[in-house]
Amino acid sequence: MTPDEFRKAGHELIELIADYREQVADMPVRSSAAVGEVLRQMPESAPIEAEPASNVIKDVENLLLPHLTHWQHPSFHAYFPANAELSSVLGDLLSSGLGQLGLNWQSSPPLTEVEQVTCDWLRQALGLSVDWQGVIQDTASTATLVALLCAREKSTGFAQMSDGVRTCGELVVYSSQQAHSSIMKASLLAGFGQNSVRACAVNADFSIDVHALAEMIEQDLAAGRKPCAIVGCTGTTAITAMDDIEQLAQLAEIYNCWLHVDGAMAGSAMILPEMRHLWQGVEQADSIVINPHKWLGTVFDCSVYYVRDVEHLVRVMSTNPSYLQTSADGQAPNYRDWGIPLGRRFRAMKLWWLLRCEGVSGLQQRLRRDIDNARWLAQQIEQAEHWRLIAPVALQTVCIIHEPPHITTAEQLDNHTQSWCEAINSSGEAMLTPATITENDGETRWMVRVSIGALKTERLHIEHLWQVLQKSVAGQL
Amino acid sequence: MTPDEFRKAGHELIELIADYREQVADMPVRSSAAVGEVLRQMPESAPIEAEPASNVIKDVENLLLPHLTHWQHPSFHAYFPANAELSSVLGDLLSSGLGQLGLNWQSSPPLTEVEQVTCDWLRQALGLSVDWQGVIQDTASTATLVALLCAREKSTGFAQMSDGVRTCGELVVYSSQQAHSSIMKASLLAGFGQNSVRACAVNADFSIDVHALAEMIEQDLAAGRKPCAIVGCTGTTAITAMDDIEQLAQLAEIYNCWLHVDGAMAGSAMILPEMRHLWQGVEQADSIVINPHKWLGTVFDCSVYYVRDVEHLVRVMSTNPSYLQTSADGQAPNYRDWGIPLGRRFRAMKLWWLLRCEGVSGLQQRLRRDIDNARWLAQQIEQAEHWRLIAPVALQTVCIIHEPPHITTAEQLDNHTQSWCEAINSSGEAMLTPATITENDGETRWMVRVSIGALKTERLHIEHLWQVLQKSVAGQL
Repeated sequence: MTPDEFRKAGHELIELIADYREQVADMPVRSSAAVGEVLRQMPESAPIEAEPASNVIKDVENLLLPHLTHWQHPSFHAYFPANAELSSVLGDLLSSGLGQLGLNWQSSPPLTEVEQVTCDWLRQALGLSVDWQGVIQDTASTATLVALLCAREKSTGFAQMSDGVRTCGELVVYSSQQAHSSIMKASLLAGFGQNSVRACAVNADFSIDVHALAEMIEQDLAAGRKPCAIVGCTGTTAITAMDDIEQLAQLAEIYNCWLHVDGAMAGSAMILPEMRHLWQGVEQADSIVINPHKWLGTVFDCSVYYVRDVEHLVRVMSTNPSYLQTSADGQAPNYRDWGIPLGRRFRAMKLWWLLRCEGVSGLQQRLRRDIDNARWLAQQIEQAEHWRLIAPVALQTVCIIHEPPHITTAEQLDNHTQSWCEAINSSGEAMLTPATITENDGETRWMVRVSIGALKTERLHIEHLWQVLQKSVAGQL
Repeated sequence: MTPDEFRKAGHELIELIADYREQVADMPVRSSAAVGEVLRQMPESAPIEAEPASNVIKDVENLLLPHLTHWQHPSFHAYFPANAELSSVLGDLLSSGLGQLGLNWQSSPPLTEVEQVTCDWLRQALGLSVDWQGVIQDTASTATLVALLCAREKSTGFAQMSDGVRTCGELVVYSSQQAHSSIMKASLLAGFGQNSVRACAVNADFSIDVHALAEMIEQDLAAGRKPCAIVGCTGTTAITAMDDIEQLAQLAEIYNCWLHVDGAMAGSAMILPEMRHLWQGVEQADSIVINPHKWLGTVFDCSVYYVRDVEHLVRVMSTNPSYLQTSADGQAPNYRDWGIPLGRRFRAMKLWWLLRCEGVSGLQQRLRRDIDNARWLAQQIEQAEHWRLIAPVALQTVCIIHEPPHITTAEQLDNHTQSWCEAINSSGEAMLTPATITENDGETRWMVRVSIGALKTERLHIEHLWQVLQKSVAGQL
């Protein structure tokens, strides 16, 4: 494609994206596509001859846009906010357009140095001390795998440099029953084995039961196993519950475990000084992951992994082939040795654009708006008949259930929950996520998560949502 | 940022990128920045108040652009081609702008289905049979880790679901002395331990010595170890040497090993039917990785991992928490279970744009041009006094050394090599990579890799390079 063809199609796409953002609020939130509907309309093979960009744009408009699920919609309350602020979209466009690749510092000095700067800017904004250094990874799943690999190598005295984990006894990883599935996945991939991964019981507020955890660890020690890592959640997946990081840090110190803090979604809230009590003790952790590609607004993917001991990270991850050695080695960070991939995209660009074009105070205002909105919705739920909050609302996730008196069995209730949630999702009025939760009565039931924090979600959208919720359980959607 | 602010800055960036591509040929290829030069000019903290995009664009122009190493320059011959075709840049812009996120099919049906389609289009273009299914990963390092995890779990009968690798004896991974550093890294991360990773001797053409490999495997078996995986390279890192995949497949079958084919860079050449003999036997492999983000031209990052047994891959990688379950499960691929990360960017968009806007025949023409250029340069080297090709030129990598008669010691020769290479890189006329190689005489020496295949590299640039090479060894640069 020539630069002039790029100009023409590029300007069209800028307009298309701006139009999309202006019009998205009027679209049904969830896609109503049937499985295979998009695929079936595409040719079976790639074209032999080049097509003009206008053909592709036409297909984007006719074939893709009508079938999207709109994550940028103000009534998107499913999963978690995956905000793609337009300022960070611009940063990412520049990253692609300049075609830079990070292999070592020399291969693109700005790529490395902007990453150093933005990770440090974000560290300060989060209120973390200068002891922490960050690196951008694709997702929290990957960062958690890196954390557990670091834990494994610390516990085994760098077994990977000799016989690997097979000679090191049974290493155990601990997290909460409410922890993200990526923690189990990372444990298995790191070689721990499912039998050595513990899901600890939780308190009434769904935070990890630290006494139960201490008991678990003691039992493992008594059985000759080696406690290796504790993963604490600043914001669990289903509930956004807050583990007591300070107490976990004490256990980690006593039992010589790695402490990884998973703040993938809720960590963004730590840009608000009034929320930092939620991860009190974080300075004693060994690693933290925070995803600026969620609530904060950096376009996916941009997960920042912070560690205190960079030397340890590099020792676990480093490779040093001759063709990558340059005279700058040792003066600048070689980020290839801070994670799994060798090559790096200029990912810091989109975070840099976000922080500059929104400003820390702009980001703070938006997050405070969302927390206020969540509180308002929680109040309506608490005051309404037959509605119940499943858990305290620490930040922006409101977990709810509707229990009308005519429903008497657990199965009926689960059916009711899934049915009214699906009615809302099918209507396109809003999008929510059903999920299971084991409550304090020991019963596992379906509930509905309302995750608040899309860029464009204002109070009026939450007021509308509350109407939609009530209509839905009344069968009026 | 409002849509209107986005429009204004977006149109400016489209022009900036087009201008950059038009002007890049006139810039020195390698950055002449000092370590910390960019960083020192940036504020210590993120701005509190939002800045206009024009501020950021100004900094891009004044602070970043002058310090880039230009991967898109026609005289960029370092490392490998990391082409960012403008058509794929547009695809990536759209991916960012639409702010889609893949968690399951429902979360963005087009994201999943365009990935299905483009991975299959690429499969056909590469001449692979319908037995293969692909998934986009970030880099080959990650894909190779996934491959070795699949190998580990196959060898151990899914040890991760019970006690992990600690109870499974010593598993061994085999690759060539010329294999990429990511293979050792992935082996260590997967828990094999350095003592269980074998670097096999190579033949005169730097391909793996299959007889030596068979002997190694026999020795390991005799010692009670378990051969687990063989990694064959279609294009080694330094030389672009071609392992004999057919023979490796025979060994893999005999010894019940996983066979992973690393075609990260050179795999792109398999879109040329006349080159497919270079990976003869690939249909018998278990997994293949190819990086469309290298020579092929998809903007980084886009690495495609092909497997024949999807069910096995999913069994190793799957997680299935309630909040991700939808009625479409089982009808559409859940790509979260095909790799390490849970969330997915709409990465297929940039590959889809590339394939459509360039056409298979356009891509073939470009790659053939590059192979011709490499052959032409190889001929000049062969015919010139005191110059020598280190290895046969299979595709587009030309590895060279200059051995003037006045140099008599190995140390002098290494100094000479590094010195003329650095003279070229410092001059900005071209960028090459020095690397070490152990030749057939058993000596390890420095040589220089000329990697040909940037988008804009025409014969005239290679003719100019040959002049620059001659000037450089004559001390005239």
